[in-house]
Amino acid sequence: MIKKCLENVRSKMPLVHNITNYVTVNDVANVLLACGASPIMSDDLEDVEEITSICGGLNINIGTLNKNTIPSMFLAGKKANELGHKVLLDPVGAGASKLRTDTAVKLMKEIKFNAIRGNISEIKTLALGSGRTKGVDADIADAVTEDTLDHAIAFVKAFAKKAGCIIAVTGAIDLVSDGDKCYVISNGRAEMAKITGTGCMLSAMMTAFLVANPDNELEAAAATVCAMGLAGETGWSNMQPCDGNSTYRNRIIDAIYHMDGETLEKGAKYEIR
Amino acid sequence: MIKKCLENVRSKMPLVHNITNYVTVNDVANVLLACGASPIMSDDLEDVEEITSICGGLNINIGTLNKNTIPSMFLAGKKANELGHKVLLDPVGAGASKLRTDTAVKLMKEIKFNAIRGNISEIKTLALGSGRTKGVDADIADAVTEDTLDHAIAFVKAFAKKAGCIIAVTGAIDLVSDGDKCYVISNGRAEMAKITGTGCMLSAMMTAFLVANPDNELEAAAATVCAMGLAGETGWSNMQPCDGNSTYRNRIIDAIYHMDGETLEKGAKYEIR
Amino acid sequence: MIKKCLENVRSKMPLVHNITNYVTVNDVANVLLACGASPIMSDDLEDVEEITSICGGLNINIGTLNKNTIPSMFLAGKKANELGHKVLLDPVGAGASKLRTDTAVKLMKEIKFNAIRGNISEIKTLALGSGRTKGVDADIADAVTEDTLDHAIAFVKAFAKKAGCIIAVTGAIDLVSDGDKCYVISNGRAEMAKITGTGCMLSAMMTAFLVANPDNELEAAAATVCAMGLAGETGWSNMQPCDGNSTYRNRIIDAIYHMDGETLEKGAKYEIR
Repeated sequence: MIKKCLENVRSKMPLVHNITNYVTVNDVANVLLACGASPIMSDDLEDVEEITSICGGLNINIGTLNKNTIPSMFLAGKKANELGHKVLLDPVGAGASKLRTDTAVKLMKEIKFNAIRGNISEIKTLALGSGRTKGVDADIADAVTEDTLDHAIAFVKAFAKKAGCIIAVTGAIDLVSDGDKCYVISNGRAEMAKITGTGCMLSAMMTAFLVANPDNELEAAAATVCAMGLAGETGWSNMQPCDGNSTYRNRIIDAIYHMDGETLEKGAKYEIR
Repeated sequence: MIKKCLENVRSKMPLVHNITNYVTVNDVANVLLACGASPIMSDDLEDVEEITSICGGLNINIGTLNKNTIPSMFLAGKKANELGHKVLLDPVGAGASKLRTDTAVKLMKEIKFNAIRGNISEIKTLALGSGRTKGVDADIADAVTEDTLDHAIAFVKAFAKKAGCIIAVTGAIDLVSDGDKCYVISNGRAEMAKITGTGCMLSAMMTAFLVANPDNELEAAAATVCAMGLAGETGWSNMQPCDGNSTYRNRIIDAIYHMDGETLEKGAKYEIR
Repeated sequence: MIKKCLENVRSKMPLVHNITNYVTVNDVANVLLACGASPIMSDDLEDVEEITSICGGLNINIGTLNKNTIPSMFLAGKKANELGHKVLLDPVGAGASKLRTDTAVKLMKEIKFNAIRGNISEIKTLALGSGRTKGVDADIADAVTEDTLDHAIAFVKAFAKKAGCIIAVTGAIDLVSDGDKCYVISNGRAEMAKITGTGCMLSAMMTAFLVANPDNELEAAAATVCAMGLAGETGWSNMQPCDGNSTYRNRIIDAIYHMDGETLEKGAKYEIR
């Protein structure tokens, strides 16, 4: 149950190691605290193995990758694999540059991920496995809409099967699949795209949900996507006339802070295909 | 028209590449989204050329410069020049250390900037072109006031002519010149100095305005300064009794989010000298 | 007097050099501005000596330490010592990894600190001076409670005496000692632990308070702890029903922004043991 997935995070308080970008890192830390988890950030080669060892999961986000942090991602990922920890990849900007695409593809080869979460352009880039350069935001032509839904579901299922992990593609419609089943989720609001970091926050939270629900990965990942989308809806309903995207960011994290399992269960809008 | 400058940003949604400091980077990203632009952050030597290539403009901010990001600034700047992209320099702390002054001066020598935005101390340091060390905040003695206005306008015009680009000096009174004309802008509030990052946000937005108004650079730069100042006024008028500088930051970004061309046109307070 | 400590910060506006983590750096900058101080962030080896020279104090926070910033911490610390500036250490995660513990211990050996602020687990790790790996959050078993208070006070006094500087241990009950006297402070709220960065903000502010009250270090450090705790209480009393941890962060900084000496004096809850 979706409900139980959030409740497990709140009761187990998983510690999540984040190697993430410096743009949205503060929001990532606060959203992890909001959902009941605890964040640690560490990206030095000498530090990451020990830090990841004391955590339950590892969230790798390549948003501002560099020559120092890339080796740390590999080292931490391997250690986390060794220890059987949950590991998630957020391939920010895969497709936008060769460094980003190649790093994400190589990470997928060398690290066993439990889940990969990105927008449709990033995930398509990974599925192609090549350095084809596209935009960093989801390409309009790629967007998952009612018209392209069947095709998109088939693509995500196939890629999840091939990658051997959960694939979460987020956008106007969100798809979360383990290769077999696919959650089609319609929570959220378009205005969330006007905030930096909703994707990064979602990935960090998903890592916490996976850690707290180890035997129920698909539902945990889907529950996180529903929770983030629902927080976008709740946060929006709390907006005052002069509030804009900066305050909306706070209201979304605040909505996660107040969300309980029951509210999530009731507010989650999804079907399983 | 000032009005059109903002409308062009909202309709063209320029992608702005930021090599910027980690202190205010999140606000920079959110303010770019608020005005209708899109942010990308990338500072690794291997990544910046490709990333800047897919963008419309490049915002170089030396606020937390280091040995890894300085070469990236030069490389990205040269690539952006090659492609005819708009490039802006925010020389944070020029004058406060030799590394900052020398880096800013060298950037000016090797990169063709469309605009440079800083406080009066930073801009005076660049005009002197030397490593004379002063404070990081604008020196009181340098402040642009009614008394020193004529002199300051002459200085900014002369430096803009010599530098061959738009010079924007912001403070209690803001000056924006292309060497020929000078906008003297009086929007804004003193309380904005109690928020970290209003300058960084302004520089990032100015880059977006330049990209969206390629043939109208001076007005685009002046419009951005008016927009930021007006957002400071609007944000302040929305303050509740217990709100302080942290909430004020959100309210300023929120005010940008809600600002349309007409509001900007009506609220802009400037004269051309 | 506690009151005077804050008033001195507001009147002297000390400039504080921060070598700090990228997770909470924006809040650190804004809280310094909120209390009347000015922040500068600089962490490149070539930049830190000059930057720290123009400041009044140095705040070293190892939250996201790396191979580039660690040498900068030592270099800046030595320069600050040479100039007689106030220097503070926030040993984030000491005990959680060998790199963090060793760096903190080595910093204590080579730099003369005026104050060290951490949670009880971090401070115990430093007192042991060894690389014993524990969690990054304060260990429950270590928590300072009414039951363990006498023992904890004795420990903090002894360590302050041995370290030759002020030791501030923050948690449900806060202890601040110079080895002779110990302030036992009960301001604050448990919900502050649900925000990232309250500790980092406190350390930065404490540096500013030390700079502005050079001959009254113990009281200055204690006043900062009271101020942060009181801001947590005031911020909480301003919370609206839908506000969560993200907005709480803003409200705490806002409360510092509005706090005057008298309010602090009246709201401070402490005894001296």
